[in-house]
Amino acid sequence: MNILDIIEKKRYKKHLTYEELEYAFNGYLNKQIPDYQMSSLLMAICINELDEEEIFALTEIFIKSGEVLDLSDIDGVFVDKHSTGGVGDKTTMVIGPIVAACHLKMPKMSGRGLGLTGGTIDKLESIPGFDVDLTFPEFKKGLQEIGFVNVSQNEKLVPLDKMVYALRDVTGTTESLGLIAVSIMSKKIAGGTKNILIDIKYGNGALIKTKDDAYKFSLLVKKIGEKYQAKVQTIIDSMNIPLGNNIGNALEVMEAMDILKGKQGYLTDLCLKLAANLISMGYNISYEDGYNMAEDAIKSGKAYQKFLEFVKYQKGDITKLKVSPYTLEVKSREEGFLKDINAHKIAKLASILGCFRQNKEAKINYEVGIVINKNIGDYVHKDDTLCTLYVDNKNIEIDEESLKCFKIEGGNL
Amino acid sequence: MNILDIIEKKRYKKHLTYEELEYAFNGYLNKQIPDYQMSSLLMAICINELDEEEIFALTEIFIKSGEVLDLSDIDGVFVDKHSTGGVGDKTTMVIGPIVAACHLKMPKMSGRGLGLTGGTIDKLESIPGFDVDLTFPEFKKGLQEIGFVNVSQNEKLVPLDKMVYALRDVTGTTESLGLIAVSIMSKKIAGGTKNILIDIKYGNGALIKTKDDAYKFSLLVKKIGEKYQAKVQTIIDSMNIPLGNNIGNALEVMEAMDILKGKQGYLTDLCLKLAANLISMGYNISYEDGYNMAEDAIKSGKAYQKFLEFVKYQKGDITKLKVSPYTLEVKSREEGFLKDINAHKIAKLASILGCFRQNKEAKINYEVGIVINKNIGDYVHKDDTLCTLYVDNKNIEIDEESLKCFKIEGGNL
Repeated sequence: MNILDIIEKKRYKKHLTYEELEYAFNGYLNKQIPDYQMSSLLMAICINELDEEEIFALTEIFIKSGEVLDLSDIDGVFVDKHSTGGVGDKTTMVIGPIVAACHLKMPKMSGRGLGLTGGTIDKLESIPGFDVDLTFPEFKKGLQEIGFVNVSQNEKLVPLDKMVYALRDVTGTTESLGLIAVSIMSKKIAGGTKNILIDIKYGNGALIKTKDDAYKFSLLVKKIGEKYQAKVQTIIDSMNIPLGNNIGNALEVMEAMDILKGKQGYLTDLCLKLAANLISMGYNISYEDGYNMAEDAIKSGKAYQKFLEFVKYQKGDITKLKVSPYTLEVKSREEGFLKDINAHKIAKLASILGCFRQNKEAKINYEVGIVINKNIGDYVHKDDTLCTLYVDNKNIEIDEESLKCFKIEGGNL
Repeated sequence: MNILDIIEKKRYKKHLTYEELEYAFNGYLNKQIPDYQMSSLLMAICINELDEEEIFALTEIFIKSGEVLDLSDIDGVFVDKHSTGGVGDKTTMVIGPIVAACHLKMPKMSGRGLGLTGGTIDKLESIPGFDVDLTFPEFKKGLQEIGFVNVSQNEKLVPLDKMVYALRDVTGTTESLGLIAVSIMSKKIAGGTKNILIDIKYGNGALIKTKDDAYKFSLLVKKIGEKYQAKVQTIIDSMNIPLGNNIGNALEVMEAMDILKGKQGYLTDLCLKLAANLISMGYNISYEDGYNMAEDAIKSGKAYQKFLEFVKYQKGDITKLKVSPYTLEVKSREEGFLKDINAHKIAKLASILGCFRQNKEAKINYEVGIVINKNIGDYVHKDDTLCTLYVDNKNIEIDEESLKCFKIEGGNL
C-alpha cells in the first residue's frame, strides 16, 4: 500500500477500504505519515466526503488507536453530552455541575480550540492551576466523589483523534460531517459512557452550517452508536448567535459561573434543556421531571457548589481567574433594535483579539475576549456600548470589524 | 489576512485575489506557512481548480519569488523545450545535444521526480560526479561553449516552484492543470528564453489525463506566454505507452545515448520531431528543414559528441554509469501480439523497484529499473522475456504486478 495512492483515490472521490484508511491513519499515528500528507488527505476528505462505510471504519480505527476506559468499578449512572461547537459555548461547564448535583456521573473529556469555536479545555485552563491531565486513578476518584470531572483527551484514549483534531484545526479541514462524527463518537465510545446526548448546533457560527447537514449528522451519530450498543440522543439547534454574552476563555468561565449562580437568559434555558435530557436519559424519567431536577440544582446552589468542588479537585484556584485590564468599548453609530449578532463575525473578532489558535504551536491569550453588552431585541441608542473588548494592547483599532457583528434596524434617526 | 480563511475560500471554490495568493505562497516561501497548511491548500486547488486570473497571478508571484536570468551577454538564439512528463521520458537528454549540435543555445533547468514520472535531474545524477548545481558563470560558460547545459532549478530562480514542486510530489497534488502551467511557465519566463516549445503529453501515464485537458493546457500556456512576450508552441501527444524501452534513472541515460548513437524507434521519431520544432522556431525556417538538420546532427555523430561534452562539462564520468547487477526476467505466460504496454502500471512497478520518491526525504536508487524487451506489435511466445527488472534485491517477487503491464492478444494457444 502507498499513501499517495490513497490520497489520490480520495482526491478523485473513490471509496477507501478499511485497510487503506488504517494504513493512512495508523501511519499518521505512528509518525510514518507526515503532517503534510495527512492534511492533504483531510482536505480531499472534506471536499469529496466520506461515505457511511468509511465513517464506520474510521471510527473503529480511531477507537482502536488507544485504550478504552473501564469505569465498571464506579457506582452510578454515566451520562455524557457533547456539543458540536459554537461561538461562546460554555455549556459543559454549566451542565456538568448540574447533573453531578443530581447524582449522575459525567466523565467528561474535551478538546482544545477547533477553528473559530474555542475548546472547553482551553477555557478551563484559564483558571490558574487547573489540571486538565488527571491520572486515571485521579479521574476515577473525582468521578466517584464529585460526579463531574473534565479532562483533556489523553494520549492513551483515542490518541489518533488528538493528533488529527490538532491538524484539522490549522489546515482548514474542520468542517466535515464525517470527520466530526468520527471524532466525537470515537471519544464517547472509548470513554465508556452508554448514554450520550449530542447537542448539534448549526448555523453561521457553528461547524455544521445547515439544518439538512444537522439532520444528516444526527442520523450518522445514531448509526455509529448502534454499532457499539450506545444510546445516542440528539438536540438540533439553530445557533446563529453567540452562546451567551461572553466570548473568550476566562470570560466564558465567568459567565458559566454566573449562570450557575442564577443568571437568566437564552443560554441558561439551553443548559437546562440539555441537563434535563441527560437526567431523563440517565434515570429513565420524563423530560419534565428531569427539567425540574436541573432547575432545583441551580436554585438550591448545589450546582454552583459542585462547580467549585470540581475546580478545586482539579487544582484550579478560581479566586485567581482574571481578564485583561485593558478594555475598549465599541459604541453604536446607529439607533434602532438589535436584530442580530453575527456569531461567525464575533468569532473572527475574538480570533483577532487572540482567543484562538492560528497554528499548532500558537499560544492562546486567556485573558482577552468580548463581552456583548446588548441582547437581541434590545433598543440601542447612538453611542450605547454594543460590546466591550478585552484586549492585550490598547492600541488595537478594530471598531469597524466590531460594528459589523451587529445588525441594528428600525431606529428613529 | 489569515491563511485559514484563504484555505477555506478555496475549499469552497471561491476566487482568490492576487493578494491572497501572495500571502499564502510568499508565506510558504518565507516559512511562515508550514508544509501542512500549504498541502491542504494545494489539495483544495487541485480539486476545485484555479481560474485563469488566479493562474496569471500565481505565475507572477512565482517569478517574483526569485531572480530572472540575464543571458543577454551570450551570443546566439535561445530555445527551450519542456515536456509535461511521461513514463520513461528522456527526451531532454536527446534534444539538448541535437539543438546544440545545430548551434542553438538551450539553457535547460529541470526538476526532480514528480509523482510517478521521474525527473531529468534525478536521471542525470545517476551519472557519477554529474553536477546539477552549476554556478551562474559556469552555467553561462557551458552555454557559450557547448550550447547545452542542464541544471537543477536553483534557489535564486523561482525558489517558490522548487518548494511547491517538492511538496506536491508527496501529497497527491501533482495533477492540476493550473499548478502545472504555473510551474512550467514561471521557470521558462524566469529562465529568459523567448522561444518555448511545450510537449504536452496526455494519457494514463502522464500528469494530464485527457485530450481535452491537453488542449485546455495548451491554450493556458500560450496565454501566459503572451503576458510576457514569449512565443509558445505546443505539441499535443497521446502518451499511453512508456517513452522508449528503458525506465529507471541510469537505464534512461543509457537509452538516450543509444538514440544519439542511432537507435531507431518511436522515441527517436518523437525526439526528432521536437528538435525539428525548436530548430524551425529558433532559425525561423521550415519544419522540414529543421527536421533534416536534426537528423543530420545524429547521423554525423555530432549530437552524441555534444552529449559527451555536456556530461563532461558538468563533471559527470559517463564511463562510471552503472545499473544493478541483479536482474530478473519476467516471462510471458501467454502467446500472441503485444497490443499495449500500460505506462501507468509500468510507472507503479518502477516505483516499487525504487526509481521514484515516496516522500520528500526519500532517496532514489539510480541503478534499478525496467527494460522492456518487446515492442508493441511484436509477436510474443510463451516464456519470451517481456521485460527485465533491475532490482536491488534478488528476493523481490513481483511477477504478477509486472505481467499486468502487458496486454497480449490474438495468440494461437
